[in-house]
Amino acid sequence: MGIKVQRFDKTGLVGELKGNRGSKTVMLRADIDALPIKENTGLPFKAKENMHACGHDCHAAMLLGAAKILSEIKDDINGNVKLLFQAAEETCFGAKYYVEQGVLDDIAAIFGMHVWGNVDAPAINIESGPRMASCDNFRITVKGEAAHGSAPHQGKDAIIAAASIIMNLQTFVSRINNPLNPLVITIGTIHGGNRFNILSDKVVMEGTTRTFSPELRKKIEGTMRNIIEHSAEALCEKAELEYFYYPGPLINDKVVTEIAQKSAEKLFGRDIFTPVEKVTGSEDFAFYQEKVPGAYAFLGCLNKDIGAIYPNHSDKFIVDESILRNGAALYAQFAIDFLNQ
Amino acid sequence: MGIKVQRFDKTGLVGELKGNRGSKTVMLRADIDALPIKENTGLPFKAKENMHACGHDCHAAMLLGAAKILSEIKDDINGNVKLLFQAAEETCFGAKYYVEQGVLDDIAAIFGMHVWGNVDAPAINIESGPRMASCDNFRITVKGEAAHGSAPHQGKDAIIAAASIIMNLQTFVSRINNPLNPLVITIGTIHGGNRFNILSDKVVMEGTTRTFSPELRKKIEGTMRNIIEHSAEALCEKAELEYFYYPGPLINDKVVTEIAQKSAEKLFGRDIFTPVEKVTGSEDFAFYQEKVPGAYAFLGCLNKDIGAIYPNHSDKFIVDESILRNGAALYAQFAIDFLNQ
Amino acid sequence: MGIKVQRFDKTGLVGELKGNRGSKTVMLRADIDALPIKENTGLPFKAKENMHACGHDCHAAMLLGAAKILSEIKDDINGNVKLLFQAAEETCFGAKYYVEQGVLDDIAAIFGMHVWGNVDAPAINIESGPRMASCDNFRITVKGEAAHGSAPHQGKDAIIAAASIIMNLQTFVSRINNPLNPLVITIGTIHGGNRFNILSDKVVMEGTTRTFSPELRKKIEGTMRNIIEHSAEALCEKAELEYFYYPGPLINDKVVTEIAQKSAEKLFGRDIFTPVEKVTGSEDFAFYQEKVPGAYAFLGCLNKDIGAIYPNHSDKFIVDESILRNGAALYAQFAIDFLNQ
Amino acid sequence: MGIKVQRFDKTGLVGELKGNRGSKTVMLRADIDALPIKENTGLPFKAKENMHACGHDCHAAMLLGAAKILSEIKDDINGNVKLLFQAAEETCFGAKYYVEQGVLDDIAAIFGMHVWGNVDAPAINIESGPRMASCDNFRITVKGEAAHGSAPHQGKDAIIAAASIIMNLQTFVSRINNPLNPLVITIGTIHGGNRFNILSDKVVMEGTTRTFSPELRKKIEGTMRNIIEHSAEALCEKAELEYFYYPGPLINDKVVTEIAQKSAEKLFGRDIFTPVEKVTGSEDFAFYQEKVPGAYAFLGCLNKDIGAIYPNHSDKFIVDESILRNGAALYAQFAIDFLNQ
Repeated sequence: MGIKVQRFDKTGLVGELKGNRGSKTVMLRADIDALPIKENTGLPFKAKENMHACGHDCHAAMLLGAAKILSEIKDDINGNVKLLFQAAEETCFGAKYYVEQGVLDDIAAIFGMHVWGNVDAPAINIESGPRMASCDNFRITVKGEAAHGSAPHQGKDAIIAAASIIMNLQTFVSRINNPLNPLVITIGTIHGGNRFNILSDKVVMEGTTRTFSPELRKKIEGTMRNIIEHSAEALCEKAELEYFYYPGPLINDKVVTEIAQKSAEKLFGRDIFTPVEKVTGSEDFAFYQEKVPGAYAFLGCLNKDIGAIYPNHSDKFIVDESILRNGAALYAQFAIDFLNQ
Repeated sequence: MGIKVQRFDKTGLVGELKGNRGSKTVMLRADIDALPIKENTGLPFKAKENMHACGHDCHAAMLLGAAKILSEIKDDINGNVKLLFQAAEETCFGAKYYVEQGVLDDIAAIFGMHVWGNVDAPAINIESGPRMASCDNFRITVKGEAAHGSAPHQGKDAIIAAASIIMNLQTFVSRINNPLNPLVITIGTIHGGNRFNILSDKVVMEGTTRTFSPELRKKIEGTMRNIIEHSAEALCEKAELEYFYYPGPLINDKVVTEIAQKSAEKLFGRDIFTPVEKVTGSEDFAFYQEKVPGAYAFLGCLNKDIGAIYPNHSDKFIVDESILRNGAALYAQFAIDFLNQ
Repeated sequence: MGIKVQRFDKTGLVGELKGNRGSKTVMLRADIDALPIKENTGLPFKAKENMHACGHDCHAAMLLGAAKILSEIKDDINGNVKLLFQAAEETCFGAKYYVEQGVLDDIAAIFGMHVWGNVDAPAINIESGPRMASCDNFRITVKGEAAHGSAPHQGKDAIIAAASIIMNLQTFVSRINNPLNPLVITIGTIHGGNRFNILSDKVVMEGTTRTFSPELRKKIEGTMRNIIEHSAEALCEKAELEYFYYPGPLINDKVVTEIAQKSAEKLFGRDIFTPVEKVTGSEDFAFYQEKVPGAYAFLGCLNKDIGAIYPNHSDKFIVDESILRNGAALYAQFAIDFLNQ
Repeated sequence: MGIKVQRFDKTGLVGELKGNRGSKTVMLRADIDALPIKENTGLPFKAKENMHACGHDCHAAMLLGAAKILSEIKDDINGNVKLLFQAAEETCFGAKYYVEQGVLDDIAAIFGMHVWGNVDAPAINIESGPRMASCDNFRITVKGEAAHGSAPHQGKDAIIAAASIIMNLQTFVSRINNPLNPLVITIGTIHGGNRFNILSDKVVMEGTTRTFSPELRKKIEGTMRNIIEHSAEALCEKAELEYFYYPGPLINDKVVTEIAQKSAEKLFGRDIFTPVEKVTGSEDFAFYQEKVPGAYAFLGCLNKDIGAIYPNHSDKFIVDESILRNGAALYAQFAIDFLNQ
């Protein structure tokens, strides 16, 4: 298509369409990775190994469609368009890698889309504000001291400190946090102790946090550490928090979102829109939005008539493919509209 | 009876019998105060106001009896005997007062007794080691910050910190303490908050602790403070512990106890003895024992045949009065035996 | 003004303007009660006793203004307008009373407004969906059994069960509830026990709950009861929940809200609008909305230039009075627009 | 030695010495099993595989010595003596096995001993009443429901219920139990959850309980079950307790203990005795004592001069072997004295 391509060590690529006039550059992003799920759709082109159970193959196809459209009207584009085919969204680290490679250096805005399995095709949702949650992870290590189970005073029982930490952490959500500002703190695993009659000298707990607010997100690690450390010290023990930052909340920029809404309205009319409540799931598109204004849209792909009824990540997930050309058109239209602005 | 008497500002007195030979001095102690209970015994000599519901009138009578006996054989006593009639045992502070007045300055040993409502008369119990518990008190003050109940994040909820403190304090008894070393921590009162829809900015809790071990007793305040302060800080609040020391555990000295046992055996034979499990009640006689070796005996005063079946502190408490002369004799015999030793 | 007036036993009144044509009736509501706060504004017309610290006098004035406007164009009104001057909003029970008196029997829609101290005058907020929270109250009574504090096994310590209930209730908000669906459970007061050394036989706790979701609200009482009763039974005690229903969440009807928005836009232009986040405060206007579709607007009354900077319920609360005619106009316009629809 | 021997499927044996007169039979018991510890004593006869780190080889040697003594004076024994060499004490199930095989059927009393690494040789302790604790085990299984960690309301978080169970179980020891009646409840292991971002649907905890009181022991399982089940139900989950009964408290019979004390005094004089506080460790000798009156003695084997300073179960545990003949003599003397009684 006459598109200049930049490649990366860790797979993925950026295509660049340079218009004849204008200096602004807009980026269209599609993620392209699959999941370690055995496909069970019965489709003739089903995956042999990893399955596109989250529909990233659709995203790639739509962005390729947009590339085709835009390359044909290249001379009329009022600036430049970069097409980012991003790997490793599922592991939460793809976006970060490309940002570090400098792909956003000259970008004025970014636009992305996701096929959405619990919204009827061909409805589209584009709303400004928080749309998906942050997704940070953590590990708590409680350090006690082993002793015989019949003589608890001779050691320090890490399990009792872990229980107190778990109970006290609930109060972050229920008492310390603003109830209008959703916060989730989930401890998913707990492991401690070697034998029923020996005091556990160590308990390890792993979990995840979710929020839609960058301000709240900044306070989570510190507040958790305060609760965890003091709860352990209250029982004469020690506990450590390791906190791992992953994508923040996905927050659509108001201006960019309005442009995308108008592009969609122009193409499909007002009735294409459907409201979708923000979700506590996460998406590494948020990494880009921390750097440049951006918008992210959900494309309904549910269609009962053709059996496209399974949610994303199901091994039976299929989409109403008629939405793919809508997606391609929307990518292209947004690029043109944004640059014309 | 020719006994020299020393009086005190706050009531009570010490009588002194000086023997002809020997320089050792032994002290016999009876507490003499009553309780603000309306007497309901039907006795002809029942109290008009405060009732001797704990039997301290018996103690006074027995010590007077001993005074009579000893004054008659004064010249044969191998040393000196001091007779302490002590006020304010029930408020836990009488003993401390007399110690501060110097009554123990020249004392080699001290002996006391208590009529015991759940042991059959005329059995006597004299055992060495811990016999009654310490009885210290405390006040915990949790400091939060008021806010409207609909916006907990705008304040600091003192009630949640109080709950965490209460739960965590249990682990002192259950995990930090040696299970063979009894410890009681009771929070008897809790008061916090002014209105159902305002975050409580303060919770006050009051309670008591009990132990039989002077070593454990030394650690209670510090361990409680650690639990309380850190539990509050875990929830970004502050809590204070005020700890008030009252009598420690009553621990009978081995040597003095054996002398008293032999005195009792000499007077009443071996069968007079009955085992009595140590009790978590307390007694300010312990103050004297922290200074000089001492022994404390329990005298059974229960007698179903005469209706003496109510426990100490009941408004129907009466005793089998036939034990009073036993008590008088034991006081006197102990004094003689100790000084002859 | 030629308005027919219906009076009520418990004060308050409904004025009725009958138009010449049309049979629909719309209700405009203003609350009129004051608060037991000593006014500290320095205004020449300041209250001698109870202060209009929440601005209900403004509401009454605005509704009176609307009455004047509407009475002058009475013949052109396409239906009937009822003007409800409601008492006892602050005690949460006024609306319920008037509903019971049948004031809503022939009403097609209801519209109300509140002057809002933390929004700049003359901005207006009218949004559909949940705008204010429910406000139910509760009392928890834990029943233990008294015993001496030194012998906890002889009684049942109500304070420990209360602590467990408090901790476990946090998990309703943090684990059982949908994090996107705000829920507040605040225990504002706790009182238990008579003496530091006696096991508490009773603890009483009072509090309030808030939610924006009628569905969630239906589950609160049952879920709390389950937590409370089982938490007490786990410690061999009993606990009771009494739950008192007050106004539910204030939820603006979509259709009525759009009519009100258009009325406001017509009068003041698009720029008058300001977004206001829903608040966890409550308002008994919600009682009406449970029966008929309605909309509730916030009128900014903050004006730094004239010192109108104190929040509602402050003893210095004053308003930018220039908004009063806006409010009167909006009441009237809404009535006309709704009936013309 | 002319002793008739009875063997058992699972190893161990009973030797029988029949006297010429008297029909009573007394049993002397030694446990003979080793531990899976690599011996590190440097002794020339050190174990190649399992080490006698608890000194059961000493017990076997002492009982063999007693067998020799008794066989030489067989005709003078006033009844019969059975010598039980018991396997599988360390796994807590040996005694139970032999009881089931009927070894106690004709036994009037039983006597056993243990070399005791933290008491100086050659001191001996024989006291009546509780000497060692019960040792029952348990498994708690909390059943939740998996869900994504970002949507806790869609599942049931087993980890939070586990934490509440752990905290509430502390109150059994601290509030429900008699503080004078030691109780230990230790949870030694906790395992739950598969992934940091998935709600844990199951938590399994294993632990042990200790008490010296058969009455308290009967209540432990029921009280724990009540706490565990209700704590889980409070959070809408389920939890199960499996409770496994092992040896109960080792309680020395008063009469048998006095006979053993006199035997020891006869052999070694009064000064051989040393007080030893009861221990929260356990011993399956208790199984026998539940059936027939018995006594159990501790033999000090600590001797700094020969480097015998390591506790039982240490890989460097050695004993002052001079006590072995004392033990053999005491076994024999007790048997003679008991039968002569």
